[in-house]
Amino acid sequence: MMTSMMQRVWPSAKELEVLPKTSLEVYLQERPKAGLTSSTFATRSVDVPEATSLSASQSLVRVLYVSVDPAMRGWLDVRKSYIAPVAVGAAMRAIGLGRVVRAADATHVGRMVVGSLGWRQFAVMDNAALAAAHYVPRGVPVTTALGVLGTTGMTAFFGLTQVGRMRSGDVVVVSAAAGATGSVAAQIAKLSGCAVIGIAGGSRKCRYLREELGICAVDYKAERGVAAELQDALDGRSIDVYFDNVGGAVLEAALRHLARGARIVLCGGISAYNSERLPSGPRNYLALIAARASMTGFLVYDFEKDFGAAYRQLGKWLVSGELKVMEEVVEGVENAPAALQSLFDGGNLGKVIVRVAPDDGHDDLTANGGARAKL
Amino acid sequence: MMTSMMQRVWPSAKELEVLPKTSLEVYLQERPKAGLTSSTFATRSVDVPEATSLSASQSLVRVLYVSVDPAMRGWLDVRKSYIAPVAVGAAMRAIGLGRVVRAADATHVGRMVVGSLGWRQFAVMDNAALAAAHYVPRGVPVTTALGVLGTTGMTAFFGLTQVGRMRSGDVVVVSAAAGATGSVAAQIAKLSGCAVIGIAGGSRKCRYLREELGICAVDYKAERGVAAELQDALDGRSIDVYFDNVGGAVLEAALRHLARGARIVLCGGISAYNSERLPSGPRNYLALIAARASMTGFLVYDFEKDFGAAYRQLGKWLVSGELKVMEEVVEGVENAPAALQSLFDGGNLGKVIVRVAPDDGHDDLTANGGARAKL
Repeated sequence: MMTSMMQRVWPSAKELEVLPKTSLEVYLQERPKAGLTSSTFATRSVDVPEATSLSASQSLVRVLYVSVDPAMRGWLDVRKSYIAPVAVGAAMRAIGLGRVVRAADATHVGRMVVGSLGWRQFAVMDNAALAAAHYVPRGVPVTTALGVLGTTGMTAFFGLTQVGRMRSGDVVVVSAAAGATGSVAAQIAKLSGCAVIGIAGGSRKCRYLREELGICAVDYKAERGVAAELQDALDGRSIDVYFDNVGGAVLEAALRHLARGARIVLCGGISAYNSERLPSGPRNYLALIAARASMTGFLVYDFEKDFGAAYRQLGKWLVSGELKVMEEVVEGVENAPAALQSLFDGGNLGKVIVRVAPDDGHDDLTANGGARAKL
Repeated sequence: MMTSMMQRVWPSAKELEVLPKTSLEVYLQERPKAGLTSSTFATRSVDVPEATSLSASQSLVRVLYVSVDPAMRGWLDVRKSYIAPVAVGAAMRAIGLGRVVRAADATHVGRMVVGSLGWRQFAVMDNAALAAAHYVPRGVPVTTALGVLGTTGMTAFFGLTQVGRMRSGDVVVVSAAAGATGSVAAQIAKLSGCAVIGIAGGSRKCRYLREELGICAVDYKAERGVAAELQDALDGRSIDVYFDNVGGAVLEAALRHLARGARIVLCGGISAYNSERLPSGPRNYLALIAARASMTGFLVYDFEKDFGAAYRQLGKWLVSGELKVMEEVVEGVENAPAALQSLFDGGNLGKVIVRVAPDDGHDDLTANGGARAKL
């Protein structure tokens, strides 16, 4: 049955342009022992598959943007985890935003999609592994599908609301608060009526938190140490929810100030990701006993069935301007490894994404029509 | 109104015997920096108060038994905790079992009571701080009021059932499983239909677990290390509930084998209690993320309103013989410090208690009649 939705202009002339014959991709050349090195990743050129080589359930996607996340470091190690490690020689796994440019089912062509596209210019994907990016509201940058309206934002939202059981009036502390997930978490907590303290490193990030986001900031690099700075910021209050992205000394400082029944939400521990040996764990973890507190790990994928409600809430805040987006865009897929390294150097503000191809002029996703669904 | 209950033989002639003039007590002489030393505690003789010096709401209690628990080490340190530290110069705080020998309200005299009596032969107590020990079933040793039917047993019961949300069929691992709390926890888990692995140090304790309690035992002192031993015992299974009394390497071993949604119940961390500096925390705590697992601290006092149901369940198992009691009784209050030290040396099996006064021949508490209540 044809619907009026299907009578759209996709595929446009632009979409039908002749595609390049080759695709640049960044692959895992060598597993890092600790930090990333110049030989961890390498770049190569591969053939773009012909349309005729796609199966009925596949699409060829032109990658527009790919994500860069601290968790990607973990995907490089061979160990028991929630996801298989990236194979040596394989294109680096990465969530990306792209457009379907070839598909057996021509109605898919032109759709903006999100999926595990990888650090490459073109990706052949099973349609079932692609989500149409319809949930980005009109007027909101399409790149938010990788940030606030992507895994990043979902992690902040479900970490606070479900794992942290955040309630209005809670004292919420967020580490790496100027980072991609932390900056969304801190804003969600504030918009939910909580007293928020963001912990970040350096005066530039703290100024951003205070001046752009209106959030009380603690500089963990301050001379007096994060424990003293956090104590001052708390001003006698205790922490109800601590959303932890970093571990280490910052986690230990938070453990010293737990309210009774406090919830520590373990989102990550970037301070340890590049260590060859495991660093010291939180030495004062027994503080959980006196506070009757919990420390809980989670993976955002477990909340996937509820993403729709989160998209609507965050989308509303984005449209109203109450939720601010900070993105750092790196040009060129070949620069993705350097962009990933920058996360561990701590220099970036907000979400780091890599622009793989120039915007194709079809960022208004509402033109795609229809409800959000797998392709 | 006189009831038939009140027409009992208390106070007996024995109770009305002339009391000694002095009471021996063990007091905190000097705060320990790390482990207990010979000058941490000292002994002194104090006057036993005359009956006339008791207020209307007070009782004089002859102490029969006092408890010795790892948590007492924490009461000696000045730091933010769930309970104020014991003052230097004060009699050492300790849960005890005693008998009321003097009281303004003569109906109280003769009652067996449980409360924070302290390491001393006689204690003047507010009646509101004493519980009548009616909940020990007939035929069960009265000393269980300090063990299975005391804080020890309640900790095991509520730690597993409420904090650990243990369900029949779960794989439950208990550390310090030959200790006071651990041995009760391991048995409760087994009686609840769980597969139980108990971790203990040395062949004597492991033999006790296997032969007396019928529980799979892992020796953390084994040459191959606790991680390898635990892995073998799990035989491919993962841990649903880990009841942790020790921390350190044993906690790290358990973190390596968490089932999805596992619950770590933080009961204590005896491996750290005597350290001058905080030891390394669990270095692999980020395993909580991939497993979507939690680590939760608790204090048994928070479950006090539900103690009645737990007494009934545990009492039933005690009467039927399904739940076994292991006690080590140390004679004389002056030996309480050495008994406490023995917990950290790891030599003891089961609950360590100190007998302060000879049994007075009235151990059948049911003679006290009435429902459990504060005096």
